[in-house]
Amino acid sequence: MDPTAVGGEKPYRTAYAADVSEAKAGERVRLAGWVARRRDQGGVYFFDLRDVSGLVQVVVDPAEVPAARDLRMEYCITVEGTVRPRPAGMGNPELATGNVELAADQLEVLSRSEPLPFIIDDRSEADERLRLEYRYLDLRRPRMARNLRARSVATAAMRDVLNGRDFLEIETPTLIRSTPEGARDMLVPSRLRRGDFYALPQSPQLFKQLLMVGGVDRYYQIARCYRDEDFRSDRQLEFTQLDVEGSFWGREGVLETFEAVVAAVVERLRGVTLNLPFPRLAYAEALLRYGTDKPDLRFGMEISDLSDVFAETGFRAFSATLEAGGVIRGFNAGDRQLSRSQIDGLETRAKELGAKGLVSAVVEEGGSLRSPTTKFLSEPETTAIVKTLGGAPGDLLLLVADTARTAAQVLGQLRLDVGKPAGHDELVFLWVIDFPIFDELESGDLAPSHHPFTAPVDLIEMRERPRQAIAKAYDLVLNGSELGSGSVRIHDPEVQQEVFKILGISAEEAESRFGWFVKALRYGTPPHAGFAMGVDRLLAILQRETSIRDVIPFPKTQTGIDPMTGSPTAVDPTQLAELGIALRVGPDPEDPDREDG
Amino acid sequence: MDPTAVGGEKPYRTAYAADVSEAKAGERVRLAGWVARRRDQGGVYFFDLRDVSGLVQVVVDPAEVPAARDLRMEYCITVEGTVRPRPAGMGNPELATGNVELAADQLEVLSRSEPLPFIIDDRSEADERLRLEYRYLDLRRPRMARNLRARSVATAAMRDVLNGRDFLEIETPTLIRSTPEGARDMLVPSRLRRGDFYALPQSPQLFKQLLMVGGVDRYYQIARCYRDEDFRSDRQLEFTQLDVEGSFWGREGVLETFEAVVAAVVERLRGVTLNLPFPRLAYAEALLRYGTDKPDLRFGMEISDLSDVFAETGFRAFSATLEAGGVIRGFNAGDRQLSRSQIDGLETRAKELGAKGLVSAVVEEGGSLRSPTTKFLSEPETTAIVKTLGGAPGDLLLLVADTARTAAQVLGQLRLDVGKPAGHDELVFLWVIDFPIFDELESGDLAPSHHPFTAPVDLIEMRERPRQAIAKAYDLVLNGSELGSGSVRIHDPEVQQEVFKILGISAEEAESRFGWFVKALRYGTPPHAGFAMGVDRLLAILQRETSIRDVIPFPKTQTGIDPMTGSPTAVDPTQLAELGIALRVGPDPEDPDREDG
Repeated sequence: MDPTAVGGEKPYRTAYAADVSEAKAGERVRLAGWVARRRDQGGVYFFDLRDVSGLVQVVVDPAEVPAARDLRMEYCITVEGTVRPRPAGMGNPELATGNVELAADQLEVLSRSEPLPFIIDDRSEADERLRLEYRYLDLRRPRMARNLRARSVATAAMRDVLNGRDFLEIETPTLIRSTPEGARDMLVPSRLRRGDFYALPQSPQLFKQLLMVGGVDRYYQIARCYRDEDFRSDRQLEFTQLDVEGSFWGREGVLETFEAVVAAVVERLRGVTLNLPFPRLAYAEALLRYGTDKPDLRFGMEISDLSDVFAETGFRAFSATLEAGGVIRGFNAGDRQLSRSQIDGLETRAKELGAKGLVSAVVEEGGSLRSPTTKFLSEPETTAIVKTLGGAPGDLLLLVADTARTAAQVLGQLRLDVGKPAGHDELVFLWVIDFPIFDELESGDLAPSHHPFTAPVDLIEMRERPRQAIAKAYDLVLNGSELGSGSVRIHDPEVQQEVFKILGISAEEAESRFGWFVKALRYGTPPHAGFAMGVDRLLAILQRETSIRDVIPFPKTQTGIDPMTGSPTAVDPTQLAELGIALRVGPDPEDPDREDG
Repeated sequence: MDPTAVGGEKPYRTAYAADVSEAKAGERVRLAGWVARRRDQGGVYFFDLRDVSGLVQVVVDPAEVPAARDLRMEYCITVEGTVRPRPAGMGNPELATGNVELAADQLEVLSRSEPLPFIIDDRSEADERLRLEYRYLDLRRPRMARNLRARSVATAAMRDVLNGRDFLEIETPTLIRSTPEGARDMLVPSRLRRGDFYALPQSPQLFKQLLMVGGVDRYYQIARCYRDEDFRSDRQLEFTQLDVEGSFWGREGVLETFEAVVAAVVERLRGVTLNLPFPRLAYAEALLRYGTDKPDLRFGMEISDLSDVFAETGFRAFSATLEAGGVIRGFNAGDRQLSRSQIDGLETRAKELGAKGLVSAVVEEGGSLRSPTTKFLSEPETTAIVKTLGGAPGDLLLLVADTARTAAQVLGQLRLDVGKPAGHDELVFLWVIDFPIFDELESGDLAPSHHPFTAPVDLIEMRERPRQAIAKAYDLVLNGSELGSGSVRIHDPEVQQEVFKILGISAEEAESRFGWFVKALRYGTPPHAGFAMGVDRLLAILQRETSIRDVIPFPKTQTGIDPMTGSPTAVDPTQLAELGIALRVGPDPEDPDREDG
């Protein structure tokens, strides 16, 4: 940073706080920033001045500089003086500039501050609602300032890698045709065509595919996307994704490119060089070994299938499950020294997650099992369990007998409950590949596992056994979070229509929803593939934040409200009339969020 | 470009078309792309293969490669063979690869194409409506491919300059509170708070100012913005701007930074090094000398004020104008050899533009004037006109007597009609500075000349003579187009409220519309300044396009329609009900655009 380059009719500063060092002792500098802390000592005032670079201590004699008398927390000032070493023993080792101070002889208040709603430092954590209402103050906290900077650095790293590989950054439209693909579209009424609506894009998917039809060889965009979902845990109505697509490209090219992108971001933000390529795991294996398609591989506790062990069991609960086509699976949770009531807690949790029950057992010296269930198991069964799960004395073994889906879901979550490391100091990336093309819904209907534009590995298989067919799709997973997903796309219009048919979309519906897109595929569409990765989630993990809201400059609450501006708001009925719409009902007086505006 | 890096399970190509050169003669390469032209000669087929890099001629014997028989225009293929020089005299000097060809022995059709709605080359220019309907084919034209690439290169250049100066790229929200600032907001109904609406941002103005309050020192964003205007000439509902803001910053810093940004873009796209700094012109002078606040300085024809010349005139039309407080101004249109009817055409044009009349005169040998009006002018008046306007024999002089505003407007436009160079081979940038804070409306009310957050040069002047007061505002102009504008902002909440008051915004209205923003200003807001520049317009000029639509990947028509997807469209009433809205009226059957869907 070169503060002299910032210009201005009158220089507000000649240096940044972080530049004030012992090497500058004796020099005059002018700083600009905020009063971060203030104390009086023997008639002299000390305060920390904070700017974008950091903090430095300023000392000023109010007798000499009367303006200093009025200083309050977060006043914005410019101050000039001489750099000097602090007296011996008075340094602050926690501060980069802790050995020096600025002895100020000029000070001007540029603007005052009202009393603060919360203290601006990283130690005190105000209520999030209040932080969002005063986001402009929250952003002054060093932690939030670091997050803003990290996000800028991360997106610059992404662009550097992709520009270097001759990808073009291309802006796709954000007022588009509504094409429901799962989540609800957010709508924008058209004024020039009253009664009609644009939609905000859930992703640039179809437009990036059209760019491929258009001869663009390599495309990317850091794109704003919109999903009107009922807010689960940590979602936002608008979010940002790195969106990539390439022609004459396949899975290997996509994966290698994204590994390079992610490695560059991690290198810049963490100073860590990742080992490439990332490991890969087939979807079916991920589900079997970790009970999820986004396994956290920072720890073991792999799930094993024990069904074969119990093929002839006399334990009725297990044999009934196997007869019904279910499975018996379990994992070794390690030597956890849990009390009986803690183990009961795990069982309660398993039932909440949908299991009929949980078999828990602790391995004893000699390889026997201590458990309420032990008595129902034969000795060979006990031995086989301990051997398969690698049980050592003291280890807690957890078993579930249920349908394959429930067993995976329950054991996968218990594995996380028991083993997931706190925080994100370690980073473990992996690719999950070989996803099914379709998911079977409760109704028996099929839904796209990724999206309906994903190419099958084998067309014949897709036609004949759609429930088993594998897609050319892949997900990127970091520490148990899905960062993004992609696929090789369908480039043959006939295959595209077959997929719509398998999905139960009639020819008429396909034509009205996707006709314009399928038409484009009829003009020499190249084979193409791509990927999209959520920027918010990646940043949150790399910055060790638990919520994506802490890496978004101005996020909304979980109910879509901005407490700072009060949006969304009512608008003038005449403006609605211009758009050809009217309120259908008055605002619901029972809506608990009404007061938030 | 390294085609081997593109990967894929099966390489679609080992080289790009542009890589096929005489240096590769004898080598085997595999290419992928589109069949751009095809002809048969003595049983052998010749065609051009087009990919992202360019064109190369392929020659193939259908007896050897039967798949070649089926080739049609724009089929997407992969082809393998041996590079060889073309026979002597058979080269194509218009093609970079014109001295070589690929003798193909393998060819695979990756996907077929239906017959084309228009020819894909730069020579034929299809109807724009058709081009937009088949935008994916239009984008294959080399000219459009160059525009897409140029846009990506330009935004990368902008980011390089700003990242290098330690600006942070920060994403501001796009679902915001509606805060009408001129143009209409586009609205997004909220589902979680039925009856309430978000707005799409007309610019990130208030959020970037809040970032300054939040301690961000230097911000930029290449931001999507939205304006629901009645489409004038060349506007889009959504557009892109480079948005910049800095704290402890002033005009000089902003101008110097934007000059560096623009110079980098021009260097990368045109290979031209601009002379910096750009010239500056005060608003009042621009209006006087060029009749506009966005003068095209590629040519002279400066307007001169001749009012003093006619202070004592006996020419009634002039003296009446002067008595009414008007002006007499004119410019020298040069030696144009216009016929009488062409000169009459200029007079008609002047009247269309609002003038009561136009005085035209041609300078004769000896310095007299040939004109229907000459007889009313005294000899000293004639001499003074010729001298002031620098008239040489044959020069056409054009004079308007009217109010200062009308004279400027009419002469400014006539100057452009007569003198504006075609195209944009030459690039002349300038800053227009010292804008008034307020514009006076017909009603006599004041409106912000830029926006209501612009700082006055002199607070006392603003209070006492608001119609005369100058703002710390500046525009960037290129070849007569305004590229962007910026200002030093108000950072004092009391000054901000004074401005609202002068604008006739009541305290209550100010509180309800901008209260949340003015509140933020009360917490130690730093002095700050910024700028925003339209990316679409800059690109159009640098790419020598007359419409911004040609530098936007997927633009809409002037009535906001996308002929490719048919948006905007009707949506399901149940979806509207979920949003708490209903259609107020059915779609207007008289809307001429209804058929466009």
